[in-house]
Amino acid sequence: MHHTPLVILIASVLASGCAASHSNDVAVPPPRRAVLYQYSVIDGLLAGVYDGDLTMAELKQHGDFGLGTFNALDGELVLLDGVSYQIRADGSVRVAPDGERSPLGFATFFAPTQTFTLDAAVTLADLQAELARRLHPNAAYAIELRGRFANLTARSEDPGTRPYPEMAAHMAAHEHRFPLTNFEGVAAGFWLPPYLGRVNVPGLHLHCLSSDHRAGGHLLEFLSAGRLTIRVMELDVVELAISKHPDFQAVDLAHDRKRSLEQIEHTPR
Amino acid sequence: MHHTPLVILIASVLASGCAASHSNDVAVPPPRRAVLYQYSVIDGLLAGVYDGDLTMAELKQHGDFGLGTFNALDGELVLLDGVSYQIRADGSVRVAPDGERSPLGFATFFAPTQTFTLDAAVTLADLQAELARRLHPNAAYAIELRGRFANLTARSEDPGTRPYPEMAAHMAAHEHRFPLTNFEGVAAGFWLPPYLGRVNVPGLHLHCLSSDHRAGGHLLEFLSAGRLTIRVMELDVVELAISKHPDFQAVDLAHDRKRSLEQIEHTPR
Repeated sequence: MHHTPLVILIASVLASGCAASHSNDVAVPPPRRAVLYQYSVIDGLLAGVYDGDLTMAELKQHGDFGLGTFNALDGELVLLDGVSYQIRADGSVRVAPDGERSPLGFATFFAPTQTFTLDAAVTLADLQAELARRLHPNAAYAIELRGRFANLTARSEDPGTRPYPEMAAHMAAHEHRFPLTNFEGVAAGFWLPPYLGRVNVPGLHLHCLSSDHRAGGHLLEFLSAGRLTIRVMELDVVELAISKHPDFQAVDLAHDRKRSLEQIEHTPR
Repeated sequence: MHHTPLVILIASVLASGCAASHSNDVAVPPPRRAVLYQYSVIDGLLAGVYDGDLTMAELKQHGDFGLGTFNALDGELVLLDGVSYQIRADGSVRVAPDGERSPLGFATFFAPTQTFTLDAAVTLADLQAELARRLHPNAAYAIELRGRFANLTARSEDPGTRPYPEMAAHMAAHEHRFPLTNFEGVAAGFWLPPYLGRVNVPGLHLHCLSSDHRAGGHLLEFLSAGRLTIRVMELDVVELAISKHPDFQAVDLAHDRKRSLEQIEHTPR
């Protein structure tokens, strides 16, 4: 959980001048931990649970950086600098209202602990290899890319209609790929360990947004052009809020949908 | 994260009488959430990571109820009413010192939301079936049993020696089973959904302690005698603190050790 309420409270107590006479009572806040907050799990989405109770307002209480989707699987969500963008099946981008709901969202307060650049033209696979060299395989990280791309493929999808099929079946018919050229922008996401494979997306998972806020989506592949700046934040804690939505409670999650995830995400593991 | 620091702080502010003049400044605490805190993941233990940095003192900051093990895999841990008990390979029980460390621990502040009793003689398998009828399969729960048992089998294990083998190999040679009769006591643990299968133990996972604090361990099977009281707490959040121990960072967790877990835990899934 993010510490803001405690920090605000301490700040207000200190500002009031009241704390001085009670300094022995005021707890020292614990060291700030880097928390990946997530609402629900990837296995639910894969199984066809496309609705949930997470509002954009609530997601933003837990971070200014992240990704996810929207109820009915209505496009891709990327949270950047505290703004939640929705990239729909037609490629359009809008700022999602605070009341918009989601079945699956991930967020953190992005505070990078290392930065590196790649000056040669690289692909998404090259970046994955570079991250594998630099990062611990069993740790978790938030990742941000900024730069220009000669070409880049993003995707979004049509919303589902009830009864919702499993995600692999839905995507086979309703995925839309956007081949973009001379893309300048940012990608946000996570690099996660294998043991989180049913909870979140293991490996690298990025959603992107162009600098002009007119294009983006789930990032499938790219070829960079010019310097790519990669900022990395190591995460200390994964905080999973379990969905109480009736669809989630009722779905059969007994078997592992790993293959289905690999098919959808198109990223090597 | 547990809210205690915030709650304590608010309580101290209110008690001081100072808050009255600053009531507009004091944030209303968010609704109390039921948090399962865990340090590290079961996949690490299965892979032979028997050392970690979690102290008993730290575990108890996150709960008064839980389970786990100790560094070197030196026995079974059960946390009851805020006291961490260690049950060693010889069956002996001691209170573990606050500085004792663990590679894997789970805890919550136990606040049951439902209670039921079973008056007929039941086995662990019967209890699992009853829980499956009463609980949502995709939700997470803390579970406590209290009562008498005609017989009960608990187990502990010898500590490992470096280089540590994988846990299934270690247990094959170093598990000690304690067949206990006329056991009166308590068992504490969790009932967790399948998607947490590499993070924690899916299904029912209990450690037990006799009322006289002279016997206990990881609970393998039982036959109850007289009334068994089962208290259940639904969990809202799973908070995973990722181990930064070098052994954990270095181990290969790429493949799923589900079969290994089933072999060790001896509980049907």
